[in-house]
This record gives sequence, structure tokens and C-alpha cells, in this order.
Amino acid sequence: MEHLRISIDRLLERINSLGEIGRIAGSKGEWGSARLALTEDDRLGRDLVVSWMRDLGMTVSVDGIGNAIGTWPGSDPTLRPVMMGSHIDTVRTGGRFDGNLGVLAGLEIVETVQRAGVKLQRGLQVAFFTDEEGARFAPDMLGSLVYVGGLGLEEALDVRDSDGARLGDELAAIGYAGSMPCPAVVFPHAFVELHIEQGPVLEDERLTIGAVTGVQGISWTEVTITGQSAHAGTTPMRLRRDPMVVASQVIAESRAVARRLGGTQVATTGRMDVYPNLVNVVPARVTFTLDLRNTEEERLQQAEQAMFSFARRMAAEEGCDITFKSLARFEPVQFEERMISMVERLAVELGHSVRRMPSGAGHDAQMLARVCPTSMIFVPSINGLSHNPAEDTAPADLEAGANVLLQVVLQLADE
Amino acid sequence: MEHLRISIDRLLERINSLGEIGRIAGSKGEWGSARLALTEDDRLGRDLVVSWMRDLGMTVSVDGIGNAIGTWPGSDPTLRPVMMGSHIDTVRTGGRFDGNLGVLAGLEIVETVQRAGVKLQRGLQVAFFTDEEGARFAPDMLGSLVYVGGLGLEEALDVRDSDGARLGDELAAIGYAGSMPCPAVVFPHAFVELHIEQGPVLEDERLTIGAVTGVQGISWTEVTITGQSAHAGTTPMRLRRDPMVVASQVIAESRAVARRLGGTQVATTGRMDVYPNLVNVVPARVTFTLDLRNTEEERLQQAEQAMFSFARRMAAEEGCDITFKSLARFEPVQFEERMISMVERLAVELGHSVRRMPSGAGHDAQMLARVCPTSMIFVPSINGLSHNPAEDTAPADLEAGANVLLQVVLQLADE
Repeated sequence: MEHLRISIDRLLERINSLGEIGRIAGSKGEWGSARLALTEDDRLGRDLVVSWMRDLGMTVSVDGIGNAIGTWPGSDPTLRPVMMGSHIDTVRTGGRFDGNLGVLAGLEIVETVQRAGVKLQRGLQVAFFTDEEGARFAPDMLGSLVYVGGLGLEEALDVRDSDGARLGDELAAIGYAGSMPCPAVVFPHAFVELHIEQGPVLEDERLTIGAVTGVQGISWTEVTITGQSAHAGTTPMRLRRDPMVVASQVIAESRAVARRLGGTQVATTGRMDVYPNLVNVVPARVTFTLDLRNTEEERLQQAEQAMFSFARRMAAEEGCDITFKSLARFEPVQFEERMISMVERLAVELGHSVRRMPSGAGHDAQMLARVCPTSMIFVPSINGLSHNPAEDTAPADLEAGANVLLQVVLQLADE
Repeated sequence: MEHLRISIDRLLERINSLGEIGRIAGSKGEWGSARLALTEDDRLGRDLVVSWMRDLGMTVSVDGIGNAIGTWPGSDPTLRPVMMGSHIDTVRTGGRFDGNLGVLAGLEIVETVQRAGVKLQRGLQVAFFTDEEGARFAPDMLGSLVYVGGLGLEEALDVRDSDGARLGDELAAIGYAGSMPCPAVVFPHAFVELHIEQGPVLEDERLTIGAVTGVQGISWTEVTITGQSAHAGTTPMRLRRDPMVVASQVIAESRAVARRLGGTQVATTGRMDVYPNLVNVVPARVTFTLDLRNTEEERLQQAEQAMFSFARRMAAEEGCDITFKSLARFEPVQFEERMISMVERLAVELGHSVRRMPSGAGHDAQMLARVCPTSMIFVPSINGLSHNPAEDTAPADLEAGANVLLQVVLQLADE
């Protein structure tokens, strides 16, 4: 079955058809989609993907948190199926590929296998998980987290969005409060997720395939520094307690810490809010976020400790108060070596350049890794862009990724 | 006439009566006023102060930009009068003292002189200038700037607020588009402004009177750094162009530059806006303000040059674009030595502790200094607070400041 190949035309047609739902325009003619979880557009997207599953003769089941799973049976019904999938919800400024690629490539694999008349030992499943983005309901990867039993169904249904809408009510309103138990009773034999890289590494190194080794551990902290609001003209430097100066010292240091730790360590301050935010007033309060990530838990803790102690010291020197609030903390996830090397080997056999790499972003695969062997396949993102209508991947790269997914699934389905 | 003293009770009564118009509450029971320029509350405040002027038998004239001047004639009508004054408009979160003190102390000096039956050679004037705060119509000190001929009347009348309302229309609507020519035809013999310090220096040094030497030069720059928006997890440090890191390095450096230059140099970043301002996105763009002040023009230029070249270098190293937009630039204003030492000497003669000090904030006096000998008298601000309902000055300090004003005016009026 090594000769089997997917149809990039069929795959692109599904990607673009789904992308039309909630279509948004970028600033330079490019286009993407806005389908926030459990909105009317999400429903329309779900209905379309479910109709495609049914067209392929798959049976579709929906669980209590709205995860939808299409199943194409194998020859041995006693064997657990191989699952592909990802998510079809997007951020408000989403592209057409993030998540959608993993789901629609799964359908394309099923269609390729069917058209070739191949009968596999294990069944194939294609899943889309609810609210992966977390753009409307926190936390992100909510659907897959509930699927694997990491968060109770009732607790998840009670999550509210920023307008106060309850997740369970919104799920029922779009008709996707399903009857399948959650967490699942039987987990798949293995899970494989094809995804765009959402970063610049593959493009920068001119490589086609990323064999994902795991997902970086994430530490999100909101740092609030409180000083003394004062007039910018009348307050001598020696009498100031300026939280903006402290924040700046801390953010500048985060770059130095990331350099010093090296490896996969990254450090980002993406958000800052200043109060009262006026030209001629020393701020009373500065709040900013610190996003630290590493593939190794020990190093991530080193980064946290270095940053927190530096920040405390700078605040004390300026006479400011400082508080830290953890917004998110996930330990690194490591995929099984067997699964990583399978992706790597099959990509090479298909003639593609490949490298092992961690995922810097969270994915449903990291939840599935708790319950079954899991791997991820990355394809390049043009300019590293994602969560942006300009998000794009060359068709040849989409095709390469989907063909690697096909070969991985064929191998897993005959185990 | 060295024995003459003002009545602190009358002064406080006027301060509190005027403060009731547009009264606002602070967070801890304190109260202040919100009388934005040319609003209905500004009109009510103006009407009250004008009625007090008339009660004192002063003739009131209003000029084309709405500056109001009350005059009490002296014995020699060929001599130009001595002017006191300030402003009665406030910021949105204003206190009762900023500006108002200088105007109402002026009325108290007139009343003290009248009750003592003293006849002065020169007349006394009390002025309140339009839109000193600039909180509604830019620039600040607009009324006094037009009064001295620094800005054309027609141009000033065409200024619009953020809602598009035209200054000239708003001025007419509150009935203060006066007929006196602007700039003035005859300027006063001298101008003296009593004002709260709006800073912590006098309180910190336990002093009662500041003999103001001049007004610091001000350089306001809006710095925009543009990098590349990127995913905080998937973008390795080496592939980043992060404007937040550059901004932080620049702000941290501004503290170092202020330390290095010493003297009166201050540096403040009070405003920062981050786009898109999300936890897990390396920002595309960071805009922040840099407020630099010094009493010496040469040193102010040194600070500007040090900061701009450092910022350019940091941006270049990170691969970011950087632009500088000047928001305001005023050279330092130096009051005449004779006027400074007069305040200093008379304060000492009244038994008050005194120090010379620059003003870090802008005041109407800096405009008047263009056309006549000018001085300012500072009294302490509790906790250095201003532009805040909690703005306050101890009654004993208000009394001391007003008595120094009285003695300065008595001396000037007999020159």
C-alpha cells in the first residue's frame, strides 16, 4: 500500500469549502475564517464536516461535550481503530488550515483508502474536538481534555464565555450535545494529528515535514507591579516608585534568561496594561504577562525561578509591590519514540526532508497522548503565520503532509 | 504694610465654594472637582468667580479667548497694574487647589488690601486663563498662550475637542467670548502665580515655600516600534523581531540616562499600547511615550540624543522598525533673578522655610514670562498628589503661600 497517494485537489476543495463558512478577509486579499466555538458558524462548519463523513459512509457519534467522531470500520471489529483528527473551531482572526487540515486530511485518507478498495484490519476514525482554541471558552483544548477524562463533563458544561453564556447551553443550542459518554469508554489504538507548524522553523530550514517529539511545557504568569502614581514633571527620580521601569527591567531580563538557558526555551511578553496610561503620569500600576515554554520541565522551572526572583528584586529596589498570578501551567508532553520515528521514517521513504521538533503550541494530540500512542505531523507555515487570515501552506506541502499521514495510518491500522 | 495678613478662612471658603461646582468624590471620602474647559460646569465656576470680583468692586473684562481679568485700580492710573492669577478649569479627575488657589488667593489679596484701607500706587489684577489644563482642547495653557500672542486667536478658536466640538463655539455657548483684544494691548507690570507644587519635593524636605526659578523644558516623544507578530510558543528566540523587548530595553535605559545626567533631569514612560496585546503572541507593534524634562536646554538635548540613538540601535539589533513622533517640545523658561529672590526674601521675612526649585509642570506663568517679569510661589502638595480628588495642601501652608503672595504683590505695586 506504499503506492497509495491522497488527492490534493479533493483536500483543497474541502479546506476551501469549510473555510467559506465564517469567511473573513485579510488586509491584502488573503482570506480565512472566524468560527468561534459553539457559534452558529461553528454549527454550520460541523454540519458540513458531518455530512462529508456520512457521504463517505462513516457512522458519526457525538459525545456529551460535542466532540464528533466519524468511524469507518476495519475488517476486525475486535481491534480498536486508528484515530485521526484535530479541531474545526478557529480564533476570531483565524486562517483556513489551523485544525481544519488535520480533520479534512483525515477524511481524505478515508476516501483514498476507500477508492483504492483497500480493506484495513483496524477501523479508521476522524474526530473533531470541541473548543480547541479556547478563544471563547477557557481552557483551550477543552473538548479533547474532557474526552480523555482530564476535566469533568459537568464542570466543562458550566464554563461561561465573557458574555456569561454557558457552554452547555450553547452546545445544546447548536444541536451538538451528544449522547456518547465522556470521557470515552474505549480509546483508540493510536492518534495521529496533521497540523500546520504555526511557526517559522520548517520554512527557515527549507524542510517539508516536522516529526513532532512532544509539546512544550507552558508557564503563563500575570505579573502586576504596583508603585506610586506621580506627576512626570514634578517628581524627582529619587522619589519615584515607578512600576513601568520595573516591568521594563523584567521583560528585558526575560530575553537574557531565554538566551542563557538556550535549547527550546522561549520567553514572551505579549500583553501589557498600564494604569492610568497617560503621557505625563508615572503609572500607578503595570500588569503584563510572561509566557515561558520549554520541552524540559526542569529547565522550565529554572526559567520561572530566574524570572520570578529577578522581578521580586527589581520591584523591591524600586519600592514597588509585585504579585504573580498563574494563568496556565502545563508540564511538557513527550510522544512515544516509536511514534516519532514512524513519522520520520515514512516521511523519508516518501522522499521528503524532515526534522524532529517540539510543538511550541498546544494541540489536541497532547491530550490524546494521555490515553494512547500519539504522534503529530507538521507542515510549514508560510512566514510562520497563524491565527491570521494570511495563514497559508503551499499545496505541495499540504500534499506531502497528508501522504505522510496516510502512510502512518496504514501502518498503524495493520498492527 | 508688612503687618498685613490674609484671612485663611475667607480663602478656604472660596476654595470650597468653587470646588462644589463639578464636585466629584475620591475613593476614600476626599473630594475634588471636574470642570473641563468650556463646559457648563466651567461656566458656573466662571460666573461664581466673576461675581466675587464684582462684589469686590473690580471691573471685569473678558477677551476673545475667554480669559477673564478683574481689575482694582491703583492711585496712579498711568502705571501698569500687578497681575495675579492662574486658571479655574480642571482635569476630569481634578482637585480643588490646582489653578483655583492662584485665582482665589488673588481675590483674597485684593480683599485684604481693601479691608486694610491701603491705597496702592499700581492697580491689582486677578486673571483666570482659559483651558490651562488642555484636558479638553490642546494645547494646554491655551488661554495664556493666546493672551501673550504665542498663538493666533482665530487658530485657537478653531481647535476642536475629541468629539469634534469647536472651541470658539463652545466658548460662545457659555457666554465667555469676550470683546477685549487678544493678544492684550497692554501687559501687566508683573505677574505672580501662587500654585500647589503638584510634586513631593517640599513635603519631602519639610519646607513651606518654593521660590520657583522657572519651568522645565519638556520633550514628549511617541516612539513606535514595529516588529513581526509571531506565535509565542512556536517561534524560536533567534527568529523573533520583538518590539516589546526593544521597548523594554529603551525604557530601562531612560532610567539610566536620567541617573547619568543627574540634576533636574527626569524621564518617564507613562503610556504604552501593545498590539495585538495577547498573552501568547509576540507583539507586532508597541507604541510608548517618552517624557523628558530638564531646566537646561543643553542637557535636555543630551537626554534626547542619548535616548533616540540608544533606541535606534536596539531596534536595529532586533530587526525592528522605529519611528519617533514629537508630541510636544518646549524649551526651559527661566524667571528673572530679581523676581525669584523677591519671593525667597519675603518668605524668609515672614518666617517661612523656603527653597528655590524649578517647576516640573507647565503653568500660565511660563507664558506671562514672555511679556513681563514673572514669578511663582509653590506650597506643598500632600503626598505630592495632584490631578486627583485627594489633592490637598495643609491650611497653614495655603495661608503661608497667600501671605507671601500678598507681600510680593505689595512690593511690586509700589515699584
